Amino acid sequence: MPVLQPIVSIAELLVQKGITHVLVSPGSRSAPLTLAVARHPRLQVRVMADERSAGFVALGMALQSGIPTAIICTSGSAVYNLAPAIVEAYFQQVPLVVLTADRPHEWLYQQDGQTIDQRTIFGSHVKRSYDLPADYTHPDSRWFIERTVNEAIGLSQSHPNGPVHINVPLREPFYPASDESFQYERVRLIDTLPAQPTLATEAWHQLLQEWEQTERIMIAVGQHPHSTALLTVFHKLSDEWGIPVIGEITSNIPRNGLFITQTDTFLSGMDEPTARELRPDLLITLGNSFLTRNLKTFFRQFPATRHWHIQPSVDRLTDSFQSLTTLIPADPLAFFEKLFSDIDYQRFLQGDDDDDSHEYLHRWQSMDQQAAKLVHQQLSGDTPLTDWSAVMTILEQLPNQSILHLANSMPVRYANLCGVHEQQQISVFANRGVSGIDGCLSTAVGAALRTDKIVTVCIGDVAFFYDRNALWSAPVPANLRIILLNNDGGHIFRMIDGPGRQPELETYFETPHGYTARNTADDAQLDYLTCDSLSVLASLLPDFFATSPKAKLLEVTTDKINNQKQFIHYKEKLKSIHQL
Amino acid sequence: MPVLQPIVSIAELLVQKGITHVLVSPGSRSAPLTLAVARHPRLQVRVMADERSAGFVALGMALQSGIPTAIICTSGSAVYNLAPAIVEAYFQQVPLVVLTADRPHEWLYQQDGQTIDQRTIFGSHVKRSYDLPADYTHPDSRWFIERTVNEAIGLSQSHPNGPVHINVPLREPFYPASDESFQYERVRLIDTLPAQPTLATEAWHQLLQEWEQTERIMIAVGQHPHSTALLTVFHKLSDEWGIPVIGEITSNIPRNGLFITQTDTFLSGMDEPTARELRPDLLITLGNSFLTRNLKTFFRQFPATRHWHIQPSVDRLTDSFQSLTTLIPADPLAFFEKLFSDIDYQRFLQGDDDDDSHEYLHRWQSMDQQAAKLVHQQLSGDTPLTDWSAVMTILEQLPNQSILHLANSMPVRYANLCGVHEQQQISVFANRGVSGIDGCLSTAVGAALRTDKIVTVCIGDVAFFYDRNALWSAPVPANLRIILLNNDGGHIFRMIDGPGRQPELETYFETPHGYTARNTADDAQLDYLTCDSLSVLASLLPDFFATSPKAKLLEVTTDKINNQKQFIHYKEKLKSIHQL
Repeated sequence: MPVLQPIVSIAELLVQKGITHVLVSPGSRSAPLTLAVARHPRLQVRVMADERSAGFVALGMALQSGIPTAIICTSGSAVYNLAPAIVEAYFQQVPLVVLTADRPHEWLYQQDGQTIDQRTIFGSHVKRSYDLPADYTHPDSRWFIERTVNEAIGLSQSHPNGPVHINVPLREPFYPASDESFQYERVRLIDTLPAQPTLATEAWHQLLQEWEQTERIMIAVGQHPHSTALLTVFHKLSDEWGIPVIGEITSNIPRNGLFITQTDTFLSGMDEPTARELRPDLLITLGNSFLTRNLKTFFRQFPATRHWHIQPSVDRLTDSFQSLTTLIPADPLAFFEKLFSDIDYQRFLQGDDDDDSHEYLHRWQSMDQQAAKLVHQQLSGDTPLTDWSAVMTILEQLPNQSILHLANSMPVRYANLCGVHEQQQISVFANRGVSGIDGCLSTAVGAALRTDKIVTVCIGDVAFFYDRNALWSAPVPANLRIILLNNDGGHIFRMIDGPGRQPELETYFETPHGYTARNTADDAQLDYLTCDSLSVLASLLPDFFATSPKAKLLEVTTDKINNQKQFIHYKEKLKSIHQL
Repeated sequence: MPVLQPIVSIAELLVQKGITHVLVSPGSRSAPLTLAVARHPRLQVRVMADERSAGFVALGMALQSGIPTAIICTSGSAVYNLAPAIVEAYFQQVPLVVLTADRPHEWLYQQDGQTIDQRTIFGSHVKRSYDLPADYTHPDSRWFIERTVNEAIGLSQSHPNGPVHINVPLREPFYPASDESFQYERVRLIDTLPAQPTLATEAWHQLLQEWEQTERIMIAVGQHPHSTALLTVFHKLSDEWGIPVIGEITSNIPRNGLFITQTDTFLSGMDEPTARELRPDLLITLGNSFLTRNLKTFFRQFPATRHWHIQPSVDRLTDSFQSLTTLIPADPLAFFEKLFSDIDYQRFLQGDDDDDSHEYLHRWQSMDQQAAKLVHQQLSGDTPLTDWSAVMTILEQLPNQSILHLANSMPVRYANLCGVHEQQQISVFANRGVSGIDGCLSTAVGAALRTDKIVTVCIGDVAFFYDRNALWSAPVPANLRIILLNNDGGHIFRMIDGPGRQPELETYFETPHGYTARNTADDAQLDYLTCDSLSVLASLLPDFFATSPKAKLLEVTTDKINNQKQFIHYKEKLKSIHQL
């Protein structure tokens, strides 16, 4: 058996465990891993020189496919360049299997090149760190490697999904002889069966009792992948049962006249009497992080009496609104389906004295409609081309069933103010695990590599140039559409309260750079379009979204002062919304 | 006292402790730190959006000035983007003071944006991690903050120098009122006095005894900043005492007919009889890492009987050659000066029976001259333009007393094969702490910001594009000269043994990208020159190195096959060197 056979066999284990795609950054120490995956007929390998981009591309692939992406990099600071993507994956709960080549540990602190302390380098930002042995002669070492890779991949896909780190110390020689072929046999697969928690009967009955005794129930959904099954459940809860379902753009709760999606507008600066009318008795949350401060502040200032959080496993107590009473370890879909079967809601509603059995829902819906109207007024008529009006136009014209990636920090906020319509069936993604601007473009590239659908990324200029290595060193997938909102700086600092008032705003926060994307698009061989008016934008989009042999970049140039004016005007209007 | 006064006062403490320059990346959570340094009249602040580049720019500033650079970034993945520079600083022993804004810890795992576990995020790759309190009402908290910043800055500058991390949780509001001015008073300075270890008398006498009883003594210098004082010592040791002093390009041991600088050439594949003739009885090392495998392999295969390593403090046992016998905690310069005063070497040499009292030195020098000749033959006559011949031409024409940054991975190796001449007085830098390609350009930018001298960075295309954000979002210093050796891919994989033999070479290791730097130079407003022959290169350089109002980028396009051919030819010739 070749000395490196246990390492070569990792490739076969990846395949057996269902992994199909690997992101590799070049290196010599990592060559045995690279060659093992490159030569495996059932693995698709993409090579990117910049590990930071590679990490986020892998994240995008895993987000799009739901399957862990494997990542391979060499030893040294290369590993740290993966860290921004890994911490995003950890908090966004995205499965990644990170294989880092290493020097054998005895070389640490011996002034040897590319040798750093990799063993637990990602700290608490991976689900687990494994450190493989550097010597494989003893059969127990080979058992350890095989068992570890099995465990790691299983762990990455158990709730909460997330990145796992396998550190792989490797001795020379790394490279096979030219007549040496690889064998992918003899791996031992250990299945980790899927399972869901089932609530104890007593606990379930207690929940039912609480539910039935509660008048004002509402459901708030944090970041969540698009799920037709869940949307069906929410339709029933809202339409038939009269329960408000609120969500943000990142919750994949679309606008349909039923769901509550405009909270960022109407929960802003709400007066106490209105807030008390809206406050639920029982708040049920699911999903990951909420996007907007207005929503979070509302639930913190006007907490529900009971707050249930449903998540598929017992884990940390996530108490975003400082009012959590009950952690329900359950799959949300299963939870609601069991609820439907155990509660006869029609009987329940008929027992209601009220004329308007859906009064509570209607109160929320009315606020939502007013908010939508206010936003619409901001963006209609002779609206200039601003970041916000551009986002509205883009969202309206997105191809049905396409994928939308919203970059931090302003695009995702603007998009949330606009929303997408249910019939568009858009899947919305955003790196809201830790909300960095560092890999938004790369994440979209990764997504585009795992679907034939059009993937649109809407991104500001700082995030775009920060991450432009997303477009370097490998062909950009033809189904990618980049819409760059270029306002020449960190626009968000002008919008949020605080920095806008400081004399240091431009120099220390916005940092204007004068760049356009023309050269970057040229280098990356993208189709490049520009526009400087809203009508041109609207007329360009149909062709822009059409299938084409090359990826496209549309640069929308906006003026930061106009952007700011529009936002200030909107905020002025907001003050009057509760008097409407 | 304003609530945030203890944070504002950190800026004054930086100044009192001698720090003059701060690198800031924009963020809101970090605003109190940003405003505190921006408003301080005695701090120079540079703003860069990409934290990865900012980290390496700060590293370059500290390398050039010898003074710690402070770094400020916001919370979340921003912090991880600093990690590549921090780990390089740790292993290259460069002082950095890293201030990371954070959410108060109670918000961790509460699905709040940009909240990750920052407390010990850099693991063992900082000298120490500090975590400041989020509340300052109790006087003991303010005492803790003041004391901690004092300690951290002192620690960064005590041997081994390195990065320190101060995590700064901050509560809202971050921004002062518009009428609120900052006060930089009332800081408490705690001096950490400089000190050097002094060997115990008994230990010193034992060393002297060993020295006097040893025939073949040699000195090998790892990476070390340029030091005129040390070079004077080495001159005396070599010229008068007949002790070979060997060093590489990164040791700042120049070519002068006396020092041994061509080891990478003549220690390659050395036969055993010659090796035994060259092997020292006592090897004395100082400095940081050695560059080339040939040197390291020689000393591992033919270890000295005694190996002393001199370093300014008791720290880890760095046993790069697996032969260390004695760790000498001493400043190298002080050590040699004491040696000069305590040993009468003339008396010693006169006692020698041998006709050639410097025979051992001459044996090394003769090898060195043969090697230099062989290299010269490779690069003379009708040599084509290759990476190597370009580097030789560039080194020869470098302005005297200028600064040279050599990027990983091939430029530093080529430069080491060529060497610089003593009369040029070049200061050579390279990121050999962990030898990554990730920040070589940014490091040079940082150096250029801290000197008026010409700073030349010689860099390959992968390292250049990887780190092109070095040139983004702030004016590039006019004294920077970038020489880009563009061979369209990771050239090193073609040169080292192993990957060159694999069918996967191009796709998985070299990764050709087809980029030129024209667009990047255009975006960054650099003067851009190209050249495709050695004679054009030679004729361009005098003007290229002249002072100018703008930074310049010279792109040297080479052919990877020609590069490889030349290197193979050189390696063929090497085989015969010991028969010369």
